[in-house]
Amino acid sequence: MIDINEAIESLDWKREPKGLYEPIGYTLSAGGKRVRPQLALTACRMFGGREEDVLPAALALEIFHNFTLLHDDVMDHAPVRRGRPTVHIKWDENTAILSGDQMLIEAYKLIAQVPSDKVLSTLRWFNEMATQICERQQYDVDFERRDDVRIDEYIEMIRLKTSVLLGNALRTGAYIAGATEQEQQTLYDLGIHLGLAFQIQDDLLDVYSDPATFGKAIGGDICCNKKTYLLLTARDIADAKQKARLKEWLRHDAGQEKIAGVTALYDELGVRRAAEEAISQHTMEALRLLETLPQNEASERLRALAERLSTRNK
Amino acid sequence: MIDINEAIESLDWKREPKGLYEPIGYTLSAGGKRVRPQLALTACRMFGGREEDVLPAALALEIFHNFTLLHDDVMDHAPVRRGRPTVHIKWDENTAILSGDQMLIEAYKLIAQVPSDKVLSTLRWFNEMATQICERQQYDVDFERRDDVRIDEYIEMIRLKTSVLLGNALRTGAYIAGATEQEQQTLYDLGIHLGLAFQIQDDLLDVYSDPATFGKAIGGDICCNKKTYLLLTARDIADAKQKARLKEWLRHDAGQEKIAGVTALYDELGVRRAAEEAISQHTMEALRLLETLPQNEASERLRALAERLSTRNK
Repeated sequence: MIDINEAIESLDWKREPKGLYEPIGYTLSAGGKRVRPQLALTACRMFGGREEDVLPAALALEIFHNFTLLHDDVMDHAPVRRGRPTVHIKWDENTAILSGDQMLIEAYKLIAQVPSDKVLSTLRWFNEMATQICERQQYDVDFERRDDVRIDEYIEMIRLKTSVLLGNALRTGAYIAGATEQEQQTLYDLGIHLGLAFQIQDDLLDVYSDPATFGKAIGGDICCNKKTYLLLTARDIADAKQKARLKEWLRHDAGQEKIAGVTALYDELGVRRAAEEAISQHTMEALRLLETLPQNEASERLRALAERLSTRNK
Repeated sequence: MIDINEAIESLDWKREPKGLYEPIGYTLSAGGKRVRPQLALTACRMFGGREEDVLPAALALEIFHNFTLLHDDVMDHAPVRRGRPTVHIKWDENTAILSGDQMLIEAYKLIAQVPSDKVLSTLRWFNEMATQICERQQYDVDFERRDDVRIDEYIEMIRLKTSVLLGNALRTGAYIAGATEQEQQTLYDLGIHLGLAFQIQDDLLDVYSDPATFGKAIGGDICCNKKTYLLLTARDIADAKQKARLKEWLRHDAGQEKIAGVTALYDELGVRRAAEEAISQHTMEALRLLETLPQNEASERLRALAERLSTRNK
């Protein structure tokens, strides 16, 4: 099996001009779970394809993902990513903008390296996915300014945020390996459900997790009034009195009191259970789709990943 | 003949989310001479190709060019572009970053729309060109920090800045229209020379032009010690005494006195003539290459453009 980290390093980020490529190497060396390229390679193996054929697209997806993080961090003025200073802190903002632009171009250079009869569809899907992710980033900004975001709009937002990348990784891997259109579509849909389960789990863990294993402070989303699955669900099912209390808490200063108050209201409303049910539904749907596909080492791996996602505690 | 401005408008920048697409429409509606798409379509006609086949690539090049201006303006904190507030002023910096990213993706969406058997080469050339232009932007930053930039490094820099886009526009148009590899390469080289003539002319006009027709203040480059063809040539051919005088002027406060002083030194050194000769050489070389290509309405148009570039006064 191909080692993604080695493959990323072998792309040579020590090239000139250093001011452009060093920050790219730095960003990509921070690690992360490499979920997207792993999904692409797993889908490839599921259909007996050659991993070398899928690798360029798998790397393009990982580089694209890191490009979005790099530019998002500039826009959010985030000082830290994966425990290290962000590029605009370690270098400067202009470096982060320009190196990010080049990362996007590097992703497209890799797309052009898949087997030539597969380039066109791979490129079109990649373009569509990239567009959805940029649009999501804009909706994110719009959402923060709105008080009336509905839960279905939120689901659409997280679909664009995480799901389309996972779906596209799976579909592209299967396509290049020679899967049928039906199989490609099934894997795409499977990725969508995996992404939704993952994102709702993310929202849930912010409130309901063990501080010892979570690794981040509990209640960060509550403190900044972030529109999460929990908050929007609470708003949806609260009665008039509960709505008023929630509104009160949202105006409250950030801190332990606020976290405890909002959590108590979530408990009262059964929001935790609603989120757990949603996660479980999306995971079940992903597993159901998986059963319609070839059963082998690769599908086994995907099943394990899906189950791990829905029971993860950090 | 296809109207480029109409074609750009028809891409529909009124889509949702408005926060993402409106700034793109605003940037693209500012006009400019549309030199790059015109070159692509002219090359297409030269070989009897269908303009509709080349149009997506022609638009991709125009959108890419405007994407670089948009992000450059953020990095330079430039408040005005083509007489209007820049996107980061009219909206904000995050909007300029994100809409710029989407412009780059839009360019790639158009590349995917050329006739399908032409997508791969068009994409590879586009990637190579985009990389060169990002690298150039980084060298630009590096150059500003250096005092020992040589004239050949400068030529390489302006080649990457303007020439590769013009060369690629011509080559891509010819390729899609069915020209031979030799003809494609000739047109690429022709574009390189056109771009070099254009950029050196730009440097020349900053110092030696008629304020009445130029439209900008004379001496802007001198005031900010910009490393132009004139300054680097002056440094190259000055004797020890002249070098000392030049150094003195570079430390001088910006203003009419500095402009007059540096211009007098340029006159003394014959820098104007050296620049005019370089422009003339590149123009002649472009015209010579043009003679080896089919002679028709399109090549006539290209000849007129080359001659206009070298005698333009603004």
